[in-house]
Amino acid sequence: MRLHVVNPNTTATMTAKIAAAARAVALPDTVIDARQPTMGPVSIEGFYDEAFAVPGMLGCIREADRDGADAHIIACFDDTGLDAARAVAQAPVIGIGEAGFHIASLIAARFAVVTTLSVSIVPIEHNLTKYGLAARCAGVRAAEVPVLALEERNADAIGKISSEITAAIREDRTEAIVLGCAGMADLAAELADRHGLPVIDGVAAAVTLAEGLVRLGLKTSRLGPYASPRAKAYSGLLASFQP
Amino acid sequence: MRLHVVNPNTTATMTAKIAAAARAVALPDTVIDARQPTMGPVSIEGFYDEAFAVPGMLGCIREADRDGADAHIIACFDDTGLDAARAVAQAPVIGIGEAGFHIASLIAARFAVVTTLSVSIVPIEHNLTKYGLAARCAGVRAAEVPVLALEERNADAIGKISSEITAAIREDRTEAIVLGCAGMADLAAELADRHGLPVIDGVAAAVTLAEGLVRLGLKTSRLGPYASPRAKAYSGLLASFQP
Amino acid sequence: MRLHVVNPNTTATMTAKIAAAARAVALPDTVIDARQPTMGPVSIEGFYDEAFAVPGMLGCIREADRDGADAHIIACFDDTGLDAARAVAQAPVIGIGEAGFHIASLIAARFAVVTTLSVSIVPIEHNLTKYGLAARCAGVRAAEVPVLALEERNADAIGKISSEITAAIREDRTEAIVLGCAGMADLAAELADRHGLPVIDGVAAAVTLAEGLVRLGLKTSRLGPYASPRAKAYSGLLASFQP
Amino acid sequence: MRLHVVNPNTTATMTAKIAAAARAVALPDTVIDARQPTMGPVSIEGFYDEAFAVPGMLGCIREADRDGADAHIIACFDDTGLDAARAVAQAPVIGIGEAGFHIASLIAARFAVVTTLSVSIVPIEHNLTKYGLAARCAGVRAAEVPVLALEERNADAIGKISSEITAAIREDRTEAIVLGCAGMADLAAELADRHGLPVIDGVAAAVTLAEGLVRLGLKTSRLGPYASPRAKAYSGLLASFQP
Amino acid sequence: MRLHVVNPNTTATMTAKIAAAARAVALPDTVIDARQPTMGPVSIEGFYDEAFAVPGMLGCIREADRDGADAHIIACFDDTGLDAARAVAQAPVIGIGEAGFHIASLIAARFAVVTTLSVSIVPIEHNLTKYGLAARCAGVRAAEVPVLALEERNADAIGKISSEITAAIREDRTEAIVLGCAGMADLAAELADRHGLPVIDGVAAAVTLAEGLVRLGLKTSRLGPYASPRAKAYSGLLASFQP
Amino acid sequence: MRLHVVNPNTTATMTAKIAAAARAVALPDTVIDARQPTMGPVSIEGFYDEAFAVPGMLGCIREADRDGADAHIIACFDDTGLDAARAVAQAPVIGIGEAGFHIASLIAARFAVVTTLSVSIVPIEHNLTKYGLAARCAGVRAAEVPVLALEERNADAIGKISSEITAAIREDRTEAIVLGCAGMADLAAELADRHGLPVIDGVAAAVTLAEGLVRLGLKTSRLGPYASPRAKAYSGLLASFQP
Repeated sequence: MRLHVVNPNTTATMTAKIAAAARAVALPDTVIDARQPTMGPVSIEGFYDEAFAVPGMLGCIREADRDGADAHIIACFDDTGLDAARAVAQAPVIGIGEAGFHIASLIAARFAVVTTLSVSIVPIEHNLTKYGLAARCAGVRAAEVPVLALEERNADAIGKISSEITAAIREDRTEAIVLGCAGMADLAAELADRHGLPVIDGVAAAVTLAEGLVRLGLKTSRLGPYASPRAKAYSGLLASFQP
Repeated sequence: MRLHVVNPNTTATMTAKIAAAARAVALPDTVIDARQPTMGPVSIEGFYDEAFAVPGMLGCIREADRDGADAHIIACFDDTGLDAARAVAQAPVIGIGEAGFHIASLIAARFAVVTTLSVSIVPIEHNLTKYGLAARCAGVRAAEVPVLALEERNADAIGKISSEITAAIREDRTEAIVLGCAGMADLAAELADRHGLPVIDGVAAAVTLAEGLVRLGLKTSRLGPYASPRAKAYSGLLASFQP
Repeated sequence: MRLHVVNPNTTATMTAKIAAAARAVALPDTVIDARQPTMGPVSIEGFYDEAFAVPGMLGCIREADRDGADAHIIACFDDTGLDAARAVAQAPVIGIGEAGFHIASLIAARFAVVTTLSVSIVPIEHNLTKYGLAARCAGVRAAEVPVLALEERNADAIGKISSEITAAIREDRTEAIVLGCAGMADLAAELADRHGLPVIDGVAAAVTLAEGLVRLGLKTSRLGPYASPRAKAYSGLLASFQP
Repeated sequence: MRLHVVNPNTTATMTAKIAAAARAVALPDTVIDARQPTMGPVSIEGFYDEAFAVPGMLGCIREADRDGADAHIIACFDDTGLDAARAVAQAPVIGIGEAGFHIASLIAARFAVVTTLSVSIVPIEHNLTKYGLAARCAGVRAAEVPVLALEERNADAIGKISSEITAAIREDRTEAIVLGCAGMADLAAELADRHGLPVIDGVAAAVTLAEGLVRLGLKTSRLGPYASPRAKAYSGLLASFQP
Repeated sequence: MRLHVVNPNTTATMTAKIAAAARAVALPDTVIDARQPTMGPVSIEGFYDEAFAVPGMLGCIREADRDGADAHIIACFDDTGLDAARAVAQAPVIGIGEAGFHIASLIAARFAVVTTLSVSIVPIEHNLTKYGLAARCAGVRAAEVPVLALEERNADAIGKISSEITAAIREDRTEAIVLGCAGMADLAAELADRHGLPVIDGVAAAVTLAEGLVRLGLKTSRLGPYASPRAKAYSGLLASFQP
Repeated sequence: MRLHVVNPNTTATMTAKIAAAARAVALPDTVIDARQPTMGPVSIEGFYDEAFAVPGMLGCIREADRDGADAHIIACFDDTGLDAARAVAQAPVIGIGEAGFHIASLIAARFAVVTTLSVSIVPIEHNLTKYGLAARCAGVRAAEVPVLALEERNADAIGKISSEITAAIREDRTEAIVLGCAGMADLAAELADRHGLPVIDGVAAAVTLAEGLVRLGLKTSRLGPYASPRAKAYSGLLASFQP
């Protein structure tokens, strides 16, 4: 099976890390096709970056869909552009944020999210509410570590994330942690060991869910908001993206 | 005062209709600066179109902001790109969807929304939930009239919208109607007369709210998700939009 | 246009302060007609005072309505008697509590309320739930300053309110403050400066919303709970209020 | 024990019917002290009537409290003035609306309410939301029978109520019915027989709950919104009600 | 009237304490028939114990039902097996958890629960959500006192419970306390005195509610999930329990 | 990997059908170990049957856990005993109800459930609320087909299920269907073809999720309600189940 994993930002080292995390958990016969857009921001921190990451990301989705992807994974914890991707892709699409929330719900009554910057707390809360899983979430905390600082994997960043996990256990009565950034994919095992509770990386979670959908033969429903986009003209820089 | 009203699609007749609706209710000394992007879809029907309307719309916001706009109005009922616009604009920003919901809440315990196509029902429901006003909404109904069909203002389109209003009164116990598309801005008065209940056009509603914010001296808070975007590199087609 | 602003308590200095706050933001051609009842409590602190403020307040509403008011504003943060006023008035009616919540929702994802006494926290929470905006509220805090202590505008009262704002920013992740008493109308600007976030006074907010409804030609819907009261006999002291 | 049952309207036949319903279920040693105010409306239909029923009703509460009532029951299904009564009375206070909802919750997963006029649907829904029991309610239906029409106990009124019960069973998946008006207190047994499901009269329900609170020695908490009203001046017609 | 009170665990001293608490509040002509199963756990702490307490408890319910019980009370704060008991019993059934929540709702806007071990917090929160009363609950706290430690009534256990009450008042803005274990039935009066707020024991609360249902002639509705179980074969150890 | 799939009822043909459905989707190296208890009901229809299916089901869980199961699946749509199983098992546990809901959430904004008998609607709604996914559910419908009637796979049963799917599409705006009984596992493909929307069988869904958890190395958190049961004595018929 062929899984397209798109890193919606343009940072190649992060794409590589995400691809490695995906391959580490993928089935032997799964090909991980990791892509990143050629246009858009180097990292996604808040609503504005999201808006400009989406067109390039949807371009990757469309191309990989034509190339025969069996499923798509959007590897940004904000699930950037997920709804639009579902409408346009033939194959099913999963965001790593929702993947983390759904998997956490299977092993804990309550989970907490630790993300990078506080500017991302509300976008994540919006998603939790939209997905229906807000009641399962013990809290969303920010370590105040910028996304690209994770690429350096310095002890300071890990220390800040670790502090928030400690606080979530003590103050929020959490039972599990969902890591709130694709750039944290390589930290899950270490943090789980250190804190003695399940720590979920959304990239790995999404791979197993996407493989599951493919094996179940399930695709996005076309009956509601994910009906294929109606044919219409797009102009200017983005004209080539018209449905 | 200077109000920037952006039609996020590229259809000029619709921009003109929106501008007229805005001017009809604006204060004498308010200048309505109506814009539309040069790139993106001719109409916004569902999540995919939304994604490609946002960059151009945000471009208009940034330019109008630099040109001294006192407030911005996003004239698409899905409130396309509203959160990103709030983060990047110096002036406050209002979506016509939220404007319709808030104003309706002041004159009715429950309101219904009548929009164009059923593909837009879930996006509108997502917004109602995000804003907190879902409990005030008696239902979102689609007239199954494409956005651009409204530009012809034919009797058939009005008839379909009118039928849904009748159904909302009889079946959903609604007390007021919010028209679910900027392209319906010219129908509010006629439909209110015909059905004997308040009918709210989001464009007009947003103008009074935007003027209100300006007169109150209120701007978007920078403490949370609407903090100014961090400086960073954007690449490719969208590089010029970097914060 | 003629805006009737009713202070539901009998304290004339407070009525004057409210009228000044309303006039400061009103449009040039808006006449602020500030009234207060001749019967009822000197201040409204909790459910019991509310009950006895309502009849006199509704008397003011009925008289101002007959005198040609274009809209009514109830200048008590508990939105005392708002539903009854909507049913009986020809003109639309806005409470300063709801006005504050709706306006705050346009400039912040989350807002906190700072009110006078803790006895008012639950009534305000009830309203937030009724309006649907509870999910937007980061918390309701009491400064433990009695309403009439605000009339003296002493530093101690402002200090206590300021402390609660500091706590709301630090502990509740609030992005904006709604002042929870009409008697705080003169403090908004000073507190916004001191704390660096938007501070909303409900009186000013309500003026712009009321002017907006009038300019939009919108009145309270008669289809649901705000149908005009049925004619019937009232006895005793309150007989003259019968519909 | 001494139970004060106050009919908040001024219709003596209704007070008598309520008193009879209360006595029919009261314990042998319970004295039912039924009162009605000397001021206010002859029936309560909607928010406006409520506002003018409250002062007289609270007068009855204060007098009966001084006369040694062990508990108070407010016999209007809107629970008119309940919060204010709790704050001022020494003895605990129960509304017949909340009584009906709580008792229904003990014998059914979902219950429906059948009330008099549709103007009362939203006030009842507000209460259900405030009490937290909205999720237990399968729907609030109006038989479109005015309150005083129930005093004539004509077949037509019963027929309309019965039709709504049939509809609630068939369309709303209800398991029990709560009668939504004190004036329906004498219909519960007949309707339960006819429809084969539990039918709850709030007056009778409230009597058993009030006796329960007294026997448990429980009184309204003074820690929150039901703290005793602060001493202050009231003016005019209502001056004698000051705390 | 005959009230069956079942302690779902097998600890006889606890059954005796529960029976005493029930008798202390029961009506003079109420016979308290206290039972405990011969199979199952000595105490119920968490989901696993619950599962094995239910069959024996339902055996008691069936036997007492055949013996002419007018109502049943399940004296475990988790309301263990309540739904199943409702389906099988002819007489109405009340859990002490729900009893505590409903009674607390009549005397306070918000109540807190203090239970034994933290493993029980989530089961209690599930119930609050299921009943609809989660919004009334200021928090569920655990004193970290095992159930059977309460049988020794040592000062340490009471001290820990008392500390949590202090914290609930100070941090959670609670107005009343519901004791979260049948084994705390004898502590309510002492703790109410010490902390100056209403403290509710679910056993006593349930007795008055059960007597109320019997006097009202109300039984569990058979229209929904509490329809009598369909006849079918059960095998093995539990064969004798088949419906 | 070794997946234990327990059919909580005692009907061997149903266990065989469930095992076949599990094997059809399982990975090549996954061993499906299908078990059923030797005690308990032949089918689970409502709360009472559930109560007596749980002990035997938990017995299977404990035995399979000792036999080295890598994960457990509870193959009853009510997720019977899921919480208790999580507490006692070393390996992670998934219910087919929750599996169906989570997988449906990845391919549709709204899904409907079609179950067997209406007595199961409320138990399923309780679960949806507990899991947080109630807002995603367009409705739970009963085909009024008893569980064991599905074992005969007659056209009548399929016709009734099909009718409810038609109604859910037309009346509830559903985008996908979750089949509400393990006994429907063989109908998903046929119904998906007939109705042109995704139809999800919980057994197959659970297999992919369970394999996912195992591959991710995730186990149930011990920090909250799923802490291992405390050692204690159990008596009588169920003594051997003591933790």
